[in-house]
Amino acid sequence: MAPEIEVVVENEFVVILVQPLYQGNIGSVARLARNFEMAGMVMVDPPPLEDEAIAYSMHGKDLLLNARCVTTFTEAVEGIDWVVGTSGISDSGEKCYLRNPLNPPELVKWLGSVNGKIGIVLGREDKGLLREELEACDILVTIPASPEYPILNISHAASILFYEIWKGTRETPRRNSPSITSREKIVLLEHYERLMEASGIPEHKKPISRINFRRMITRAAPSQREFNSLMGTISRAMDYKKKKGE
Amino acid sequence: MAPEIEVVVENEFVVILVQPLYQGNIGSVARLARNFEMAGMVMVDPPPLEDEAIAYSMHGKDLLLNARCVTTFTEAVEGIDWVVGTSGISDSGEKCYLRNPLNPPELVKWLGSVNGKIGIVLGREDKGLLREELEACDILVTIPASPEYPILNISHAASILFYEIWKGTRETPRRNSPSITSREKIVLLEHYERLMEASGIPEHKKPISRINFRRMITRAAPSQREFNSLMGTISRAMDYKKKKGE
Repeated sequence: MAPEIEVVVENEFVVILVQPLYQGNIGSVARLARNFEMAGMVMVDPPPLEDEAIAYSMHGKDLLLNARCVTTFTEAVEGIDWVVGTSGISDSGEKCYLRNPLNPPELVKWLGSVNGKIGIVLGREDKGLLREELEACDILVTIPASPEYPILNISHAASILFYEIWKGTRETPRRNSPSITSREKIVLLEHYERLMEASGIPEHKKPISRINFRRMITRAAPSQREFNSLMGTISRAMDYKKKKGE
Repeated sequence: MAPEIEVVVENEFVVILVQPLYQGNIGSVARLARNFEMAGMVMVDPPPLEDEAIAYSMHGKDLLLNARCVTTFTEAVEGIDWVVGTSGISDSGEKCYLRNPLNPPELVKWLGSVNGKIGIVLGREDKGLLREELEACDILVTIPASPEYPILNISHAASILFYEIWKGTRETPRRNSPSITSREKIVLLEHYERLMEASGIPEHKKPISRINFRRMITRAAPSQREFNSLMGTISRAMDYKKKKGE
């Protein structure tokens, strides 16, 4: 399958709120999306909008009223080329293998090497993003804060991220040779899936291997040449396994 | 008057809320002050604290309950060495001569060259800081945002500023030879006052001249040597005026 040629000069940013609870936060995020020129808003399973959210949204009211509302995370990230998850710092627990997030300046640098529609995912106020949602993100970002109390309110996390992205995309020169498209990313992940299959690694190790590969590839933002090289290696590895009859 | 020798290794940050209106904002700012390790909180003429503010403050509750409450701006900045005012972008109107604010990265760089207790002043939700309050600030900072809608909610402005300051003071090396102390700043401003007096500039031009001088000196963060040089020049200029019998 030949990857489609995509020419996107500027990234377009969409904020994705996952099961937000509080009207004030919903409205504040819409206002901030307008302050920092996000193109749109998606909400997964939001509560019915009340006057409070509208009041908080101020000039972001149209973004709020035109938000695309969906029922699942999968629907929310449809059409998004690169899914950026926000994550608290978690060094332990079942989500710990998902760590190694970027900080905002690193995210901004990375954004300079990708093209397309970028989704900024904000998790639930109480329990953040679920395991499968974190896994579905291409890359994670964490806002550093006091080790004594690093937990930010969702709208304040949004303000810092949106500001950094807005400022950064104006200041950071875009990389001349853009990295692979999101379509090529998918092709590469499919190849890796088949390589795992062919290699016979135990079923229970696949999820971690899959997510680690996805994160590494995304962070690396490979060039076309690197993509071709890696695809070649994976293909040859699979051929080799086949020839050996394993 | 010989300036006192002050040795302060780290700056200490205090947030100053001027006549805040909304409980949610008050609580949010206290939480953010804790997230980004501010040392204390001062409030000018706040409303009586309600449960809502306490609830929003989360782990910043002690900062909120121990906030120093005063009735005037002058009292609020007592004991503060450097007063940093936050300001929306205003290119016109009666406050326009106060423009030329720093952006947050410039503020962070500047903070690396001063010593002492820094007050971060957040104005009223509805009308910001009054003219005389802006004038009493040593330096101004503005958060850049969409030209279409740059007006941030006060707590979101606070989150961006606190984050930049917290991050910046960890990343930015402090200047080796610290700039003048806040006491020397005051001596210099007093000298400039006398110079204006001696020079006979019209009374109505003094306020602008005074504020411009204060802002320039603060932004420049002069070294001891530069301070001495400038003090010498001003003294000689006054002597000259005296000798000429003007």
